[in-house]
Amino acid sequence: MASFSFSSVLITGANRGLGLNMIKHLLNSSSIPIPNHIIATCRSLKAENAKELQKLGEKNSNLHLLEFDMADVTGPRLPELVKKVSDIVQESGLNLLVNNAGMNLHETFDKLNADALRNTFDVNTVAPCMIAKAFRPLLKRAAIVNISSTMGSIENCNNGHSLAYKVSKAALNMVTKGLSGEFGGDDITVVSVHPGWVQTDMGGSRAHLTVDESVTSIIKVMSSLEKSQSGSFLSYDGSILPW
Amino acid sequence: MASFSFSSVLITGANRGLGLNMIKHLLNSSSIPIPNHIIATCRSLKAENAKELQKLGEKNSNLHLLEFDMADVTGPRLPELVKKVSDIVQESGLNLLVNNAGMNLHETFDKLNADALRNTFDVNTVAPCMIAKAFRPLLKRAAIVNISSTMGSIENCNNGHSLAYKVSKAALNMVTKGLSGEFGGDDITVVSVHPGWVQTDMGGSRAHLTVDESVTSIIKVMSSLEKSQSGSFLSYDGSILPW
Repeated sequence: MASFSFSSVLITGANRGLGLNMIKHLLNSSSIPIPNHIIATCRSLKAENAKELQKLGEKNSNLHLLEFDMADVTGPRLPELVKKVSDIVQESGLNLLVNNAGMNLHETFDKLNADALRNTFDVNTVAPCMIAKAFRPLLKRAAIVNISSTMGSIENCNNGHSLAYKVSKAALNMVTKGLSGEFGGDDITVVSVHPGWVQTDMGGSRAHLTVDESVTSIIKVMSSLEKSQSGSFLSYDGSILPW
Repeated sequence: MASFSFSSVLITGANRGLGLNMIKHLLNSSSIPIPNHIIATCRSLKAENAKELQKLGEKNSNLHLLEFDMADVTGPRLPELVKKVSDIVQESGLNLLVNNAGMNLHETFDKLNADALRNTFDVNTVAPCMIAKAFRPLLKRAAIVNISSTMGSIENCNNGHSLAYKVSKAALNMVTKGLSGEFGGDDITVVSVHPGWVQTDMGGSRAHLTVDESVTSIIKVMSSLEKSQSGSFLSYDGSILPW
């Protein structure tokens, strides 16, 4: 079933929500081989909300925890992160990069302002794009999964609520398509994935899916990725979403 | 033929290229009634590249020239601009807002960096969005035309060249769709328009269309806009483009 295997994976924003649960599933997977290296990044490993990730790191030698702030894509921190990951994965390279870290201000249209648009774009669009570009030399027979959202589907949008988030995810989908064309020659598959409406801090308790259901589905989609899917916008169930 | 008439129009970035030529066509139109008020904005009216616009302003009493820098969407300048336009159009309101000002760095993928993404997003996405929001109270039986580009079509993208521009225009298309939903109840039609590949400073000399050809077509599209088209991505010939 799995047409794409990854022995190393990096997940950003891995201290909570979807990211943390992807880490847990990968550490205990029965459906796919457990990766040799699982690299989890989050803004601060000392933060209260990184305690669970810290505990997992202590128990699992194949889990590597690294600090990275999405705001640091312009300074020396990003090349430093690439170097650290390179030292971990060595010549087998990185097989799966999951740009998971993201934010949603949930602003009403009345509250929308330039800073909301800029800050959300910085975290949800600029950071994943620059991270993907920086990791390109390490990516070998690899996939980049940009965690997007059906809210980023221009076709599906019908109001201005959370417009900063919608704009940033539509922009991220363009990044996915551009990277797919740019990296195709290097055997790197790039997709946007909508995780479903998930019961996380971001999704709220009224969401349709539990984190477990979403993550199980996403891992299934990731592990069966085919090169022909590069540049597409997939839902957690593997179906194709409109741009 | 014209299903949408505008007695007042505002065009940003009107000192050169498409913007300047739209102004010229509107001042001398035989196909549609000449607007009572044509408001042209550009960054600096004293700049060398605003001389032609200045001359037109001296000759035409229905042409109003106002300075506005796309970087000024957060300060007091934007409400000041709205006030000035309100004083011009008075109770008949503004019927057509053309978000034309834009930039393209034409960077190769190797040269793409966070600042390229941010700066292009600021001018091409944030500014049009905040301008549309600020002018909402003045818009009456109106249309907002966001000058986008087929390069902003995620579907059509196949490489990372000029990715900052592509990302900003995909993001602008989401703004169009969000505003369309948000403003629909106020009888405001919002569309993205691809002007064609035009022989301007931005398009270069190898472009397919002369500025005249493009502007003639765009004005035809704008003057025949129907409410049912709100939220769509139109080419200069009126055909619908994929997101």
